[in-house]
Amino acid sequence: MSSISESTSTCEPTLADRYRRVRQFTDQIVEPLSAEDCLVQSMPDVSPTRWHMAHTTWFFETFILAHQGDQDVFDPQFNYLFNSYYNTIGKQFPRPQRGLISRPGLDRIKDYRQVVDQRMLELLSGPDLSQDVADAVLIGLNHEQQHQELMLTDIKHVLSCNPTLPVYRPGSFPDAWRPNQDWFEFEEGVYEMGAVDQFAFDNELPRHRQFLEPFGLASSPVNCGQYIEFIEAGGYQKPDPWLSLGWSTAEQQQWDAPLYWVRQGSQWMVFTLAGLVPVCPEWPVCHLSYFEADAFARWAGYRLPTEFEWELASGQGAGNQFADRLWPDGQALHPTCENGPSESIQQMMGTVWEWTSSSYAAYPGYLPPAGALGEYNGKFMCNQYVLRGGSVATSCDHIRTTYRNFFPPDARWQFSGLRLAR
Amino acid sequence: MSSISESTSTCEPTLADRYRRVRQFTDQIVEPLSAEDCLVQSMPDVSPTRWHMAHTTWFFETFILAHQGDQDVFDPQFNYLFNSYYNTIGKQFPRPQRGLISRPGLDRIKDYRQVVDQRMLELLSGPDLSQDVADAVLIGLNHEQQHQELMLTDIKHVLSCNPTLPVYRPGSFPDAWRPNQDWFEFEEGVYEMGAVDQFAFDNELPRHRQFLEPFGLASSPVNCGQYIEFIEAGGYQKPDPWLSLGWSTAEQQQWDAPLYWVRQGSQWMVFTLAGLVPVCPEWPVCHLSYFEADAFARWAGYRLPTEFEWELASGQGAGNQFADRLWPDGQALHPTCENGPSESIQQMMGTVWEWTSSSYAAYPGYLPPAGALGEYNGKFMCNQYVLRGGSVATSCDHIRTTYRNFFPPDARWQFSGLRLAR
Amino acid sequence: MSSISESTSTCEPTLADRYRRVRQFTDQIVEPLSAEDCLVQSMPDVSPTRWHMAHTTWFFETFILAHQGDQDVFDPQFNYLFNSYYNTIGKQFPRPQRGLISRPGLDRIKDYRQVVDQRMLELLSGPDLSQDVADAVLIGLNHEQQHQELMLTDIKHVLSCNPTLPVYRPGSFPDAWRPNQDWFEFEEGVYEMGAVDQFAFDNELPRHRQFLEPFGLASSPVNCGQYIEFIEAGGYQKPDPWLSLGWSTAEQQQWDAPLYWVRQGSQWMVFTLAGLVPVCPEWPVCHLSYFEADAFARWAGYRLPTEFEWELASGQGAGNQFADRLWPDGQALHPTCENGPSESIQQMMGTVWEWTSSSYAAYPGYLPPAGALGEYNGKFMCNQYVLRGGSVATSCDHIRTTYRNFFPPDARWQFSGLRLAR
Amino acid sequence: MSSISESTSTCEPTLADRYRRVRQFTDQIVEPLSAEDCLVQSMPDVSPTRWHMAHTTWFFETFILAHQGDQDVFDPQFNYLFNSYYNTIGKQFPRPQRGLISRPGLDRIKDYRQVVDQRMLELLSGPDLSQDVADAVLIGLNHEQQHQELMLTDIKHVLSCNPTLPVYRPGSFPDAWRPNQDWFEFEEGVYEMGAVDQFAFDNELPRHRQFLEPFGLASSPVNCGQYIEFIEAGGYQKPDPWLSLGWSTAEQQQWDAPLYWVRQGSQWMVFTLAGLVPVCPEWPVCHLSYFEADAFARWAGYRLPTEFEWELASGQGAGNQFADRLWPDGQALHPTCENGPSESIQQMMGTVWEWTSSSYAAYPGYLPPAGALGEYNGKFMCNQYVLRGGSVATSCDHIRTTYRNFFPPDARWQFSGLRLAR
Repeated sequence: MSSISESTSTCEPTLADRYRRVRQFTDQIVEPLSAEDCLVQSMPDVSPTRWHMAHTTWFFETFILAHQGDQDVFDPQFNYLFNSYYNTIGKQFPRPQRGLISRPGLDRIKDYRQVVDQRMLELLSGPDLSQDVADAVLIGLNHEQQHQELMLTDIKHVLSCNPTLPVYRPGSFPDAWRPNQDWFEFEEGVYEMGAVDQFAFDNELPRHRQFLEPFGLASSPVNCGQYIEFIEAGGYQKPDPWLSLGWSTAEQQQWDAPLYWVRQGSQWMVFTLAGLVPVCPEWPVCHLSYFEADAFARWAGYRLPTEFEWELASGQGAGNQFADRLWPDGQALHPTCENGPSESIQQMMGTVWEWTSSSYAAYPGYLPPAGALGEYNGKFMCNQYVLRGGSVATSCDHIRTTYRNFFPPDARWQFSGLRLAR
Repeated sequence: MSSISESTSTCEPTLADRYRRVRQFTDQIVEPLSAEDCLVQSMPDVSPTRWHMAHTTWFFETFILAHQGDQDVFDPQFNYLFNSYYNTIGKQFPRPQRGLISRPGLDRIKDYRQVVDQRMLELLSGPDLSQDVADAVLIGLNHEQQHQELMLTDIKHVLSCNPTLPVYRPGSFPDAWRPNQDWFEFEEGVYEMGAVDQFAFDNELPRHRQFLEPFGLASSPVNCGQYIEFIEAGGYQKPDPWLSLGWSTAEQQQWDAPLYWVRQGSQWMVFTLAGLVPVCPEWPVCHLSYFEADAFARWAGYRLPTEFEWELASGQGAGNQFADRLWPDGQALHPTCENGPSESIQQMMGTVWEWTSSSYAAYPGYLPPAGALGEYNGKFMCNQYVLRGGSVATSCDHIRTTYRNFFPPDARWQFSGLRLAR
Repeated sequence: MSSISESTSTCEPTLADRYRRVRQFTDQIVEPLSAEDCLVQSMPDVSPTRWHMAHTTWFFETFILAHQGDQDVFDPQFNYLFNSYYNTIGKQFPRPQRGLISRPGLDRIKDYRQVVDQRMLELLSGPDLSQDVADAVLIGLNHEQQHQELMLTDIKHVLSCNPTLPVYRPGSFPDAWRPNQDWFEFEEGVYEMGAVDQFAFDNELPRHRQFLEPFGLASSPVNCGQYIEFIEAGGYQKPDPWLSLGWSTAEQQQWDAPLYWVRQGSQWMVFTLAGLVPVCPEWPVCHLSYFEADAFARWAGYRLPTEFEWELASGQGAGNQFADRLWPDGQALHPTCENGPSESIQQMMGTVWEWTSSSYAAYPGYLPPAGALGEYNGKFMCNQYVLRGGSVATSCDHIRTTYRNFFPPDARWQFSGLRLAR
Repeated sequence: MSSISESTSTCEPTLADRYRRVRQFTDQIVEPLSAEDCLVQSMPDVSPTRWHMAHTTWFFETFILAHQGDQDVFDPQFNYLFNSYYNTIGKQFPRPQRGLISRPGLDRIKDYRQVVDQRMLELLSGPDLSQDVADAVLIGLNHEQQHQELMLTDIKHVLSCNPTLPVYRPGSFPDAWRPNQDWFEFEEGVYEMGAVDQFAFDNELPRHRQFLEPFGLASSPVNCGQYIEFIEAGGYQKPDPWLSLGWSTAEQQQWDAPLYWVRQGSQWMVFTLAGLVPVCPEWPVCHLSYFEADAFARWAGYRLPTEFEWELASGQGAGNQFADRLWPDGQALHPTCENGPSESIQQMMGTVWEWTSSSYAAYPGYLPPAGALGEYNGKFMCNQYVLRGGSVATSCDHIRTTYRNFFPPDARWQFSGLRLAR
């Protein structure tokens, strides 16, 4: 089977082009799936693929088309079914039951996408596109890119619950790339943090100052071989390096390895989107909770970086190796992205999301946007931890050094790993 | 839309004919459903339609074809996926997660049915069909008929969870039939109970004796109008007539009417397989738990009959009005079945399952069959109550006066009602 | 330490005497306990000792003294705190939280007992005691005797949760009595069942007829040695003999032996009211759930008797060995009770409660008493199984052949065992 | 009834004196309680009073006496029963079951305290007290002071579960003190934070630098009158100002006011250690979760301060009004403590714990102590939020400007309120 990839041109002439490209990439993700695959919700955190397809479409319909006055809504019931969490917009169908809704069927959701796309493209092709609309479209596209990553991680979880271990897309596995293993040192100082001069979510703002003590950062993420040492040293048997809440979680959920790892004799295997394959020691370890990342770091004698340490390092000429495959399925989903200088810190972006020690919180002076989009980020700033850098499942024109992802500390189904700090 | 019905001939020449007819009726049930509808499991008690389709097929493959020596199994993984509860056969995929298994898809399950049907019909058309095989086929067909009723009640529950309240099959509602409301009296005596001289499940055996004190039985089931009186008299607000466990269950689950009933202004509506319709006072009330049936009876000054009282009455010339529709969708699923004398007790069979006060238990001298089929009935004889008489969703050649259905006392998603005794 | 026992005289002259004797026995039970011991509720089914002390007193105050007109209630709040489940009387403090109520303290509850006793004894000593009052007093005394048994089994559970395994009362263990192991056979017939001509609870009435097929009953209860064979044959590892609900319960609760049994090397030990002692093979096995009793019987090739089989056998000259000790603490709590003929079935009463296969249900024609006492028994007739015969913790003037005890099938903290039938 | 208070002298001559004083204050706290009161555990977060008494004693025995070589332990089982969470020391009895352990009784725990006190005072009176021991004793005393506050808040919760609403200690309520309501402004800068030159817990270290943007802080905590405005404006009905997790928590737990508040007609009442009393609008509001504090601040158009903003303000001449009573029981538990300048921010310490927006995390360069005491603080640095300033239940020689308390965001049973920032 041939690989799929987003088509990118060297110059990006119009917003309409970008709209078309992002929306089509969703279709590419869905292509290997049956209508039934697209319905399953394997745990409350997971949403059915078809829900992602409809919700991202509802987002454009609700936050853009509905403000243009003359549009009919495609189906009045969708506002209840496909609103995720915007109380300002209205009530929402309960999240844990999304997998029970077999109708509208996948075909009707595809129609929905088509109708909204047509209206959106008409709007975007019009002569007098306001800045407000353009801004909202950018949010909508970034929003869809977030859901594209979730579609991949959610469907992976769905398939992993099936004892037949279905393959999402077959793939071959090239030799692993071995990054250098070094430390990079950074000096103390007051640094400016947060987004500037490009698209960013509200939670990356405002640009502000942080004082950092001197610190060092590892040149590459922790890999599977290193993590296996932790396992074999009894990492999941002894409470010492664990946070108290982490240890009780690990005991209750009977963790003994990263999510998706299973032991076959003396070999660790891992369930991937390309099926069950042997773990390669050089791969960056992922599908770790914050608890496991933190315990590993303490066991190794180091710690997780703060999100500001990470952001500082990332901004100083990091070399980003966007993995050109949906790890580890061997198939390219990503376009080639430009790398930084080869002497720099490696794999900062596009490999695995890296847990930081920073609790997800508002930046000084943070103001959520007015209206419903004010619920986009701010209301989740509690009991979550920041991850930085994007993963193989992140579109490369979606990620940036100031980007803040966040999950609760027991979440494991994202491509989440770690990089050591000292 | 035209009605569907099982085609019945006046004489039933061969087992192969019957096999073909029963199996085709499953296809008729599935016909209005999408692949996605067939996947949903809306609560642990509900199974996906596709699971029923595969499991009933697995039953024939495992208990008949596999014993014929030269057959290949269709797919070795199905033995794990579609075994319901037969520990003798092997481990089972956890029941509450049946809705997470999107593969094999519906098409492959249809292939499975076709392949097994072909092999079964070859076997049944062969010259020397043993009695053992014929007996097992009869069990398999009755088994599939049980699952056909479950398909209908399960898909009803699935659709009821969808806020768009989808229609399984559109239907019109004829005038309700008004049965006479009388009492029939029965004398004390030692009576023979249990099956004799026809196909029966093991739990209807052995034929044995029961002493019954004199009793009376109502001529027809309790209807919706009578039940509305109970509701309006505060039946769900006052603990007096309730069993202690029933009252706590009703409080926890916030019951205030039968399952699927919703109040719109002053009108009670009920969700049916034909959508949401007004409750008709003359309809037999159904979707009651044992707890509600028992509380209603006590509130009304009467009681539920024992299963032996019911069986005695049913055997003495009861008039059975097999409802010719899938209540209340207005469409015939049942063939016309012969009624008893018009002066007799009415609607004993084929209307609603009638809760009895009898805990589901073994008859004196009961012996479960040897082998895996010994797990069919016996191991469920605890904390369940017997229902008698079949419902509109029961095939009329599946039900009989000695038939024992059973559910836990809080189960409501079957077509379960009651008849008063004194 | 000296043993305690209820003082019994050969003739029982007055109700006042009996009142005094039963109430004093409660004091004897409480004597070895601290105020703190009396407060603990180790699971929702268990009540604090002090709650039993107050509730039984509230029973006399509410159902007798309050009907005598001129009495003040001791404390108006007690009606909420110490009402167990009588909705007719008023709301009840939530059962699972009884252990959170440190005030009123034990001393005040003792005062309560004393004040009510004084008033009751005045009433009972009066010249014109009505039959209604006398009847209610008899119920109150039998009620207190039921709670005396619960006090012993509840405090046993409480102490078992303490890792220091405290001793309720020290005791020595005499040689076990070895009953003969035979079968007694009974003929088919219509038999009269239920209470006649003596005090009985409403659930033992009315006297009515049952047809019994011929059956056999074991001459003594199953003993620990026999049960150890079941354990060693993998009884807790293989699902075959278990009810489906029993097996899932055993798995969830990780049962591998009767409650209170722990293995030390090759020796089974059991926690008793006299502390942890080695299991003696000749002892009747107890602290079994219905599920375990039923599984053992099926594994052994037999079955549990129905409650009517048990009652028939018990009434035909059974020899009752009232164990004169609180098994197995070696101390007498019971007076010597008269035994039946030595050739008869042994240990029918006063040894261990024997699970029967009968679901707890109303007898034909059963009518609960009018008023609040109508809630005493009837509303619990669901999902419980009948036990017969009393245990070492039952007062010998409380038990009789028609007595029906009942518990849910997973209950294990009573002195509950089994006798085989065939 | 007379008030109780810790006796303080103007000079503190010896560690032995301080030891004696702190330990005796525990006795004062326990004095109004019965043995039964001391046993109750009303929720998993609450520990029985007697457990606090034993655990704080075990702390001295384990971390000091056991290191002196020749000491016998008082009871070897106490190491299991009264170890809170030190895995390095050994296994712990499960926390949620502490209330089930009626033995050892309160008297034996008092003996335990006396024996350990005697040994400790011998040690402290000895000629050559090492610095290590002195340091450990200081930790032990601060540890006991932490548990003294917990004893008060835990027993308050215990008594609040009793429908008779018992009074811990009667009290009268003086006129409320009305603080000025102003804003104090602070300039941006790099500030040193953390403890210096006095006893501090490890989590207050190391002294390090933080950059703060300019900010303003309210001159006094939010009071009950202000909070009632929030309630009356629908604060608990509308999701807008709430964190997403806060809103779902409030819905699930059916919050409609601070913990312990109940409405009687038009008057808000609050359960206190002196019983149920009317809410006074001028009192600082407390028994708020982080979620409520955060929602109130957002609703009011402000925000919670960070812990560093709070620490900066507190260090710049704040006026601390140590409430001289156990709010609001009108009785002094605290000695008179010196106040700051009257023109300064008020009630920073000793009134209510003030929620900050800071997630509880390690300071840069934080190193937990070696050995078991390394488990004291560090392993709890996840999903908790920092509170500053102490409450009326905090000993005034226990609190300081750098002190970091921490609780999960749904915790309400501490004296926790808030101060607005902008």
